[in-house]
Amino acid sequence: MTYLAKIEQLNSADLAAYRPLILDGDPVGLIWRDNLARLRDHGLDLRDDGDRLIWYAPADFAARNAILAELAQALAAEGYVRGWRNEQLPLLANLHRPVRALIERAAAPVIGVCGYGVHVNGTTTRDGVPHMWIARRATTKSVEPGKLDQIAAGGIPYGIGVFANLIKESDEEAAIPETLARQARPVGIISYTAQTENGIRADTLYNYDLELPPDFRPHNRDGEVDEFLCLPLDEIARLVRDSDAFKQNSAVVVIDYLIRHGYLKPDDTPDYPALCRGIHHRHPQMHS
Amino acid sequence: MTYLAKIEQLNSADLAAYRPLILDGDPVGLIWRDNLARLRDHGLDLRDDGDRLIWYAPADFAARNAILAELAQALAAEGYVRGWRNEQLPLLANLHRPVRALIERAAAPVIGVCGYGVHVNGTTTRDGVPHMWIARRATTKSVEPGKLDQIAAGGIPYGIGVFANLIKESDEEAAIPETLARQARPVGIISYTAQTENGIRADTLYNYDLELPPDFRPHNRDGEVDEFLCLPLDEIARLVRDSDAFKQNSAVVVIDYLIRHGYLKPDDTPDYPALCRGIHHRHPQMHS
Repeated sequence: MTYLAKIEQLNSADLAAYRPLILDGDPVGLIWRDNLARLRDHGLDLRDDGDRLIWYAPADFAARNAILAELAQALAAEGYVRGWRNEQLPLLANLHRPVRALIERAAAPVIGVCGYGVHVNGTTTRDGVPHMWIARRATTKSVEPGKLDQIAAGGIPYGIGVFANLIKESDEEAAIPETLARQARPVGIISYTAQTENGIRADTLYNYDLELPPDFRPHNRDGEVDEFLCLPLDEIARLVRDSDAFKQNSAVVVIDYLIRHGYLKPDDTPDYPALCRGIHHRHPQMHS
Repeated sequence: MTYLAKIEQLNSADLAAYRPLILDGDPVGLIWRDNLARLRDHGLDLRDDGDRLIWYAPADFAARNAILAELAQALAAEGYVRGWRNEQLPLLANLHRPVRALIERAAAPVIGVCGYGVHVNGTTTRDGVPHMWIARRATTKSVEPGKLDQIAAGGIPYGIGVFANLIKESDEEAAIPETLARQARPVGIISYTAQTENGIRADTLYNYDLELPPDFRPHNRDGEVDEFLCLPLDEIARLVRDSDAFKQNSAVVVIDYLIRHGYLKPDDTPDYPALCRGIHHRHPQMHS
C-alpha cells in the first residue's frame, strides 16, 4: 500500500453524513444522519439550526449527564453500543473550553464526541542506526488488540493536562521514569475522522518525540502491553506502509514522524503535500 | 497578535469565490468569480462543468502558451496585472504531474496557478541558546521588500527538483556551500490560499531544517537580500507573533518550526490544534 492509503483508510467517515452538535453554544460533537431518529426516539431534544443540531439540554450538569447515561444504557441494552468501558468522556469544544456534559466512552461515537490523546515516539540509536521502541497492545484490549502502537499512548481524561497525562501513561505503560518522560518534546498533532459501527471518532492526538538512552528498557505495569520491540526505523516504516501490524491511528503518528524527520523526501514522494495535509483532517465545522 | 491570527491573515482568500480550472483533465488553477467574465472576454474558452471550469485549450503546447501570453500582456496593458516578472510559471496539478501550459508569473493569480517554493530554516546555537539566521529581503524586491525571511527561500521553477532548487537558492541567496546545504532535512510543508489584488496565490512551500556551524556566516550573491541577522529563537517567535517584520508566508514557516520543535506547548496554547491544522490550508478541489 501507500502511506496516503493508510491515512485515507483511517479517515473513513463520510463527513457529508454528519452535522455538528451544539450544546450551550459550543460545538461538542458530530451526529451521524443514521443516528438522528434514534437519538430523538430516546428523548434527546435535538433541534435543527441550519447545518447544525442544537441540543436543548437541561441547564443542570447532573441532569444532562443523567440523560446521556440513560441513553447510553438503553443503546447498550439494544446491542447498538458495545464494549462498555465504565469511563466518562467529556463533551467539550476543545481541551481549553468548559466541559458541557459527560458520556460513557463506549457511546461517545453515537454523539461524535471529539476525543483527545497523547502519543509518544520513543526513539534510540543502536549501532549508529535510528530505532523506535514499539509496544504490542495486549490481546485483552477492546480496541485493536495485538496491534503495534507507540511506546506510550492514551486518551486524555478531562481535568488532566496533556503533558501530565503523558507522564502518567509513560509510567503506567512503559515504566519510563518521570525525569526521562519530562524530556519529551511536543511536535504537533494528527487528527482524523474515523467511521465506527455506530458513529464517528473525530480525534486529535498530541504527538511527542522522546529520545531514550541506549540502555533504557521499557516494561509494562498496567497490563495494556504484551511486549515491547525496538526496531530500525526503516523496518517500522515498511510495517506501517505494507502491513496492518500497526493500530490504524498509531500508523499515522509514525507517518507524521517520518515526514518531520526527513525519512520521506519531496522529490521521491509524489503525494508528499497530500500526506502532510492528510494527517491533519478537519473535524467539520468544529472550532478546534 | 496571536499565531493563529497570523495564519488566518495569510489565508485571506474566500474559497467560496473560487472554482477549480481543469486542463487536460487535471486541476491546474483556481478561477476567482470576479475574473471569469474578464477571462472569457479575452478569448479563454472556459466552460462550466458543475463546480469546475474546463478550459477547452488547443492541444498544441505552444498554441495554448501563446493564448496565455497574449492574455497576460492584455491584462498588463489594462493595468490589471502589475509587476511583470518575465518568468514563466507552469500550470500543473502537482510537481510530479506533466506541465499543461505556461503563464507569466505576474499573471499567475488571475488563473490561480498553484505555486511551489522551498524554504530553509537555518539554525545554530550561540552560548547554548538556539538561534535562527534570518534574511532581510532587498528593498528592490517586488513582493514584500524589506521584510524578514528564511535564510534561503525561493520559488521552484518547473523542471528543477525540490532539493536541487534548495541547493541553488542556498548558494545564490546565502552562499551556503553545497556540502553544507545537502545536510538540510525535509520536514513537511505549509500551504495557504492568499487573496491578491487580482486572484489567488494557492502555494505549497516545502520546508527544510538546516543546522549551521557556529562559525558559519551567510552572505548574499544575487542582490535579493540586504542583510542577515542571527537572532535568538525567542526573539524570532516574538517578532512573528507581535510584529509585521516578517514576510507573511515566511512567518508561517517559523510557526511550523516552533510547533515541530516544542516551542509551542499544548497545555499553554489553547488554539494548538487549530495552529497545526491551519498551516496546511487545503486548495479547494485540488488534488495535491
